[in-house]
Amino acid sequence: MKSPPAPASAPATAVNPDIDSERRASTFDVEKLVNFWDGGAERTRLRRAVEHVINSDPVFSQENQYFWTPTERYEAAVKRAVHLRQKIKELGWTDDGPEVQFAFRILGSELAFGVHNMVFITTIMKLGTDAQIAKWVPLAKDYHIIGTYAQTELGHGTNLRALETTATFDASSQDFVLNTPKVSSIKWWPADLGRSASHAVVLAQLYTQGVCHRMHAFIVQIRSLLDHSTLPGISVGDIGPKLAFEQVDNGYLRMQNVHVPKENMLSRYSRVASDGSYIKQGSDRINYISMVFTRVGIMSGEILPALAKACVIAVRYSAVRRQSELKPGEKEAKILDYQTQQLKLLPQVATTFAFHLMGSSLEAFCKKVNLQIKTERDFSSLPELHALSAGMKALISATSTAGVETCRRACGGHGYSTLSGLPWLYCRVVASCTYEGENTVMLLQTARFLMKCLALVDSGQPLPQSVSYLSEPVSRYCSAKEKTDFFKPFLYTEAYKHRAQRLIKDSGDKLQSLLLSGFELYAAWNVTSVQLANTALAHCQYIVVKNFVEIMEGLKLEAGVQQVIKRLCDLHALTGILSNAGDFLYDGYITGKQLDLVTSSHLDLLALIRTDAVSIVDAFDYSDQQLNSAIGNYDGNAYQRLFEWAQKCPLNAKVNLAYEKYLKPRLQAAASKL
Amino acid sequence: MKSPPAPASAPATAVNPDIDSERRASTFDVEKLVNFWDGGAERTRLRRAVEHVINSDPVFSQENQYFWTPTERYEAAVKRAVHLRQKIKELGWTDDGPEVQFAFRILGSELAFGVHNMVFITTIMKLGTDAQIAKWVPLAKDYHIIGTYAQTELGHGTNLRALETTATFDASSQDFVLNTPKVSSIKWWPADLGRSASHAVVLAQLYTQGVCHRMHAFIVQIRSLLDHSTLPGISVGDIGPKLAFEQVDNGYLRMQNVHVPKENMLSRYSRVASDGSYIKQGSDRINYISMVFTRVGIMSGEILPALAKACVIAVRYSAVRRQSELKPGEKEAKILDYQTQQLKLLPQVATTFAFHLMGSSLEAFCKKVNLQIKTERDFSSLPELHALSAGMKALISATSTAGVETCRRACGGHGYSTLSGLPWLYCRVVASCTYEGENTVMLLQTARFLMKCLALVDSGQPLPQSVSYLSEPVSRYCSAKEKTDFFKPFLYTEAYKHRAQRLIKDSGDKLQSLLLSGFELYAAWNVTSVQLANTALAHCQYIVVKNFVEIMEGLKLEAGVQQVIKRLCDLHALTGILSNAGDFLYDGYITGKQLDLVTSSHLDLLALIRTDAVSIVDAFDYSDQQLNSAIGNYDGNAYQRLFEWAQKCPLNAKVNLAYEKYLKPRLQAAASKL
Repeated sequence: MKSPPAPASAPATAVNPDIDSERRASTFDVEKLVNFWDGGAERTRLRRAVEHVINSDPVFSQENQYFWTPTERYEAAVKRAVHLRQKIKELGWTDDGPEVQFAFRILGSELAFGVHNMVFITTIMKLGTDAQIAKWVPLAKDYHIIGTYAQTELGHGTNLRALETTATFDASSQDFVLNTPKVSSIKWWPADLGRSASHAVVLAQLYTQGVCHRMHAFIVQIRSLLDHSTLPGISVGDIGPKLAFEQVDNGYLRMQNVHVPKENMLSRYSRVASDGSYIKQGSDRINYISMVFTRVGIMSGEILPALAKACVIAVRYSAVRRQSELKPGEKEAKILDYQTQQLKLLPQVATTFAFHLMGSSLEAFCKKVNLQIKTERDFSSLPELHALSAGMKALISATSTAGVETCRRACGGHGYSTLSGLPWLYCRVVASCTYEGENTVMLLQTARFLMKCLALVDSGQPLPQSVSYLSEPVSRYCSAKEKTDFFKPFLYTEAYKHRAQRLIKDSGDKLQSLLLSGFELYAAWNVTSVQLANTALAHCQYIVVKNFVEIMEGLKLEAGVQQVIKRLCDLHALTGILSNAGDFLYDGYITGKQLDLVTSSHLDLLALIRTDAVSIVDAFDYSDQQLNSAIGNYDGNAYQRLFEWAQKCPLNAKVNLAYEKYLKPRLQAAASKL
Repeated sequence: MKSPPAPASAPATAVNPDIDSERRASTFDVEKLVNFWDGGAERTRLRRAVEHVINSDPVFSQENQYFWTPTERYEAAVKRAVHLRQKIKELGWTDDGPEVQFAFRILGSELAFGVHNMVFITTIMKLGTDAQIAKWVPLAKDYHIIGTYAQTELGHGTNLRALETTATFDASSQDFVLNTPKVSSIKWWPADLGRSASHAVVLAQLYTQGVCHRMHAFIVQIRSLLDHSTLPGISVGDIGPKLAFEQVDNGYLRMQNVHVPKENMLSRYSRVASDGSYIKQGSDRINYISMVFTRVGIMSGEILPALAKACVIAVRYSAVRRQSELKPGEKEAKILDYQTQQLKLLPQVATTFAFHLMGSSLEAFCKKVNLQIKTERDFSSLPELHALSAGMKALISATSTAGVETCRRACGGHGYSTLSGLPWLYCRVVASCTYEGENTVMLLQTARFLMKCLALVDSGQPLPQSVSYLSEPVSRYCSAKEKTDFFKPFLYTEAYKHRAQRLIKDSGDKLQSLLLSGFELYAAWNVTSVQLANTALAHCQYIVVKNFVEIMEGLKLEAGVQQVIKRLCDLHALTGILSNAGDFLYDGYITGKQLDLVTSSHLDLLALIRTDAVSIVDAFDYSDQQLNSAIGNYDGNAYQRLFEWAQKCPLNAKVNLAYEKYLKPRLQAAASKL
């Protein structure tokens, strides 16, 4: 028994005895797990310091936010963004220091100007000349201009090459003339565009001297700097309500003969001369890595925090919610004691760890590739990194989204209340299945890479590290004889490896046989695409399990923490086998009897992890302010807080016009009769 | 080739050629499928007539509704409810006639007073004496009082017997004194309570002469009929924002020593005499059937329409959205031509049919049981009906919810926009996984029934019809030899039957062996509950497939329509085998090779059904007004309508205070520099 952890901001209220008893029963030192999660005690200290700064500043307070209108939320997001910039200056935090990173991660989409900061500025820095950078970036950093990144159109998202917006060079005026020629060409979705942006980096097909040179980026001023009025030829506005992110002004942009000066084409890698001739200078291939960086960044920065917070809320609530007698005649049981509830929640906790570790490994891989490129102009690892990050983005976003929703539903009716915090978590995280590359498209990109690697195996060439298992021998049958065998990481990793290898080979075989039977490649690919997408998922699941095992086996932590991590690793792996049982049974790799052993081990793990469940989610170390959940607070006082928060709902203070208009005469007529 | 159908309100706009060509390629007579769906041409006519009345009345218009505030939506819902009541009188529709049923179904939760109409009035009619009915029901029907049904509390939903609200008889005043003694006892969630209700039927533990007589229902006035002010001892209000249903005033109700007159206890089946003695008169068992009716009603009335609408929107959009070249060098392909998109959407269409037919069969079963009870006092079928409806509610709500979300995500970014109609569909339908019985609880109730039936088999007693298969012989191995074998309904129904039978027996065996090894029943049940819930699902899936096959085989429609229905039946069944492949492979009933045949047949079906996909969803016959989707209209003009609707967003007309407050001075400073 260890003492309960001190959260970043320990509450003053009395702790519910039902959750207190959970913490007292915990078998490990929570603070050690917090440090492991953060990547070291020093980072824990820093993160908490930043969180303290944010939590103690009323501008950043999320209190009552669930009652705000979209307009109020947008205004608060703008206010916070401007305020944070000042705060960063005051505190002397550097732009690429850990404090700023923590601050942005903690505040997330509650800050306006995400695209301005992450994409508009970054694109100018990557694609702009030194002069362009010197002109635009300082203005943008101080919010003297607000920029957006206008790429996606009403009719095109995935297929960038088919974007319809044009930028035609007019040698007579030395201007580019920008047009969104059709309704389907209207720029659609860019954040910070609907109400905020003064400028946009617009992606458009460059035409000069009658030739199309494909997509290039142009800085286009869209609103007056004096009064924010729309400039001539521009139609701009908000695209309206969405499933979430009402505080973000996603917008549309229509352009009709909008002239921008020649120097507004971002020209580090290509430019247009005064006579209209097109000059390419060097390769912009290095820019592909920023797309990969963004994709990996959202896994750790957007997706995973949603899953982690949902786990905290649902596990804590399940420790204080009592419903029905488990044993007849006894007190009603904590719902966390029901096996079905454990099955819903605990695998999500395990998956949070699995994806957290995978995210860290991907970040390390990104850094390595970036360094190879920058120092050695070695681009050889880029295809592997691209393929891995694409498939992982799909796996992690889809699985985390499902996990958040499972946690939400596991809280019953209260999980449907916005005040629980869970609906917003779901509605936000689910967007990640679509943005930064639609998931099916992502999986098929990974599959394409896998098929290329399979061809390398057949020709005996060396393989990239993440797919080297394609040429490794793998056992034909699972060797498990008793249920404890399934607590052996080697054994279950081998099962995942076998499955991925088989599915990749089967997909390759199907493609081959279709080609041999006369299919053209595009048609063979399409009629194999369902199978290919599944194959890519299986590959990524194997990598996640392997990565978890490798990190776990390399740890040297105190025994209690080590044991918790080992159990979570086992649980994550066995959950995946059970939910994809068909794949493992298909060729008899695992037999029905062995699957029973998996089921049995899995249930044992649920019971074991249940003991530490509250302490494990405590170790995600979210302050009550950041969870912003009436049912997930550290103190476990869910009902009291739901009631308090509901009473603050402004609907309860407003005059009820519906009553005045439609009900009053009717009800008054009844008064005389009752 | 048949001519395209005339929808209830054919649009005046030009039809997008991409969707027009789909309709021209259709292989069957859409109107015939509409009639099948509606249950006959006469019902189609009636439904369209009602829909015409609603669509042509501006009070019911949903135009611009996505931009409304929660308060505006609540007011509109109240206005519509009052207006509909007048309209019903004017048109001479009878309360239990089909027109009223259609009208309520079409308007759904956009009408206020759902609980008032469906539960408050119904409860008084079921549990009230003739005098109580005569006093309260006419007032309620004319909205001279507005009632709610206050059962669920902050701390209790599932376990009704543990509700904490008390009603104590005070012989001296001849009153009942109502109390919600703890925070957890506060009534929570009742619709129509937060802002509307003047009265509530409150469920409370009845205490008289110091004895608790469990739950009874009391009519409690909570607000003044003169000015709507809250009455003494009452705290009442709105519980605040939710994932959806912002137009519904779900509320809380706290009572502190609230006195209600003795005659306000609903006393058809039990009453309290003046001296406080408790008198039971007859059994209220018949009331259980109303819970079952409600549960079955939401399947057809709430859940299925959401899935059907999502299918219409997503399939139509997929026929007009073109993205990427399928064949290099050709025009971009309709996304409906991608196999991965077909896999997402078409099984949802098939499932819509499967559940629609299951819903109809359940309604017929309900009517039969109701008649048995009313005419012969024969309650013997009630346990079977209860078990079947509980499990089906869980299966149908969870599967439909997943289906709606799959459709939503399949529309990419535009599916995230509220204007697509899809986010509201999801956020509403997902509530059905929780309300009217949380799904896991429902499945375990079905499982309990199945275990009882299993015991009957062992003792050789007769079985209820829906579980009679438990004593039937079933083949040990699937007989399929080629892929066309999986288009044989007998063959796949048998597979489902085998799986359900096996899982039920396995669950029974596990329970038995645990009991033999010394477990108490409650503990054995809990550690088997994950398996039991899966077993109940498998049972329900079998019944759904069997029901689809039986109805399909009994049809005598024209060949084209018959063929479409047969393919949808096959697709639904094979989709279920593939998504639960582990269960079928587990004991070798289906081999890996046979599973390949299933996969192959499944893909063939996708390609076949794809040809008719647009016409099939046209046959759900939703008018554009009822779909209320910018991307799912009959005319297929998705981009144009998204752009038009977005421009109407009030955010685009409002003064931008965030700019005025936080950005103006900064941007103006930049004006001099640029």
